[in-house]
Amino acid sequence: MNKAISDKVIGRLGQYRRLLGRLAEEGARFVFSHDLASMARVTAAQVRRDLMVLGASGNPAKGYSVSGLLEDIEAFLDAPDGQNVALVGVGNLGRALLAFFAGRSTKLRIVAAFDANPEKTGRVIHGCRCYGMDALEAEIQREAVTVGVIAVPADAAQEIAEHLIETGIRGLLNFAPVRLSVPANVYVEDIDMTVSMERVAYMARQNAVSLEKL
Amino acid sequence: MNKAISDKVIGRLGQYRRLLGRLAEEGARFVFSHDLASMARVTAAQVRRDLMVLGASGNPAKGYSVSGLLEDIEAFLDAPDGQNVALVGVGNLGRALLAFFAGRSTKLRIVAAFDANPEKTGRVIHGCRCYGMDALEAEIQREAVTVGVIAVPADAAQEIAEHLIETGIRGLLNFAPVRLSVPANVYVEDIDMTVSMERVAYMARQNAVSLEKL
Repeated sequence: MNKAISDKVIGRLGQYRRLLGRLAEEGARFVFSHDLASMARVTAAQVRRDLMVLGASGNPAKGYSVSGLLEDIEAFLDAPDGQNVALVGVGNLGRALLAFFAGRSTKLRIVAAFDANPEKTGRVIHGCRCYGMDALEAEIQREAVTVGVIAVPADAAQEIAEHLIETGIRGLLNFAPVRLSVPANVYVEDIDMTVSMERVAYMARQNAVSLEKL
Repeated sequence: MNKAISDKVIGRLGQYRRLLGRLAEEGARFVFSHDLASMARVTAAQVRRDLMVLGASGNPAKGYSVSGLLEDIEAFLDAPDGQNVALVGVGNLGRALLAFFAGRSTKLRIVAAFDANPEKTGRVIHGCRCYGMDALEAEIQREAVTVGVIAVPADAAQEIAEHLIETGIRGLLNFAPVRLSVPANVYVEDIDMTVSMERVAYMARQNAVSLEKL
């Protein structure tokens, strides 16, 4: 069943979880699909279809139970015992990612970082121990890592990806500004902050220009 | 003319620039559209359509000039005098972004950072000065900032976005895990690293499961 679920649905479920978490903090006990839809900027029909994947159904009068949905999403999205993550590349970006993800989730933990620079070996950065590249396979096996984060320069990324895939990792979050070539059974998500920044800058200029023309 | 160019094209041009920069470093003088396409994981026809936006045309025998394309893309994507960027939210993520973007581009500079915490006012982090929120409008005017980066918690992001838009900013790079409500003439790009990580973890698990079933 799960094989048919697209990564788009998974992304939206993650987003709903965040919104529901905020609603729960604010004391809300129930939520209607159209309210969740409006917060997530999708249609109410989309929300209902996505939540059907969880087998969740709302009460026509009160909507969905906030805590019930949170439990359903957690049961669906998270591995029961969590998943361990390895990060490769402890430069500015890698350190930033360690800082950002440290303590953020109990279910997804960056348990090891790797860098080709021997000066980084043995250091503990934001609670995460750094290893040399030669320790990659052994540490990934030992920690049963299933997710890899690539934060190395573009010209090293493909080799690192292949190395991670050889250890059995099937999901990669790639921050290197390069498209990785991977087998069909490996999922890659690219985050290219430089391209995003350039695009926002370009669009900002176009919007400012069109504004001046008014 | 520029108004018809989609953000997808802009993103790909940024990506081609990065790939061409690497080719130039490696000493390549010419490149065929199918080679650039293969590096960018798009079709050669797509590359040629995108490059037509620049008015660039290749030589059938030698392909496109690498340095020529780099110049064309720069002329198209970048503001001649560069653009200034302001970052709001100097927590873990904000500091990480300052570290990542510091010195990365001569055309896009984060010239000011803002945070509600008065302890951060006056500090210089990765070369960028921090200000209190009350200085936002004046600094943005003074530095002629045209791009805003939002790195505040979810519940503060909408208010910050409105504040930035009031100062005249028309492009936002949003790292807060929330969909912003903005006027049609404001471009927003969302980067949600937590949702991305969760999605990669989920897909990694599915791929590992399907592997075990073989």
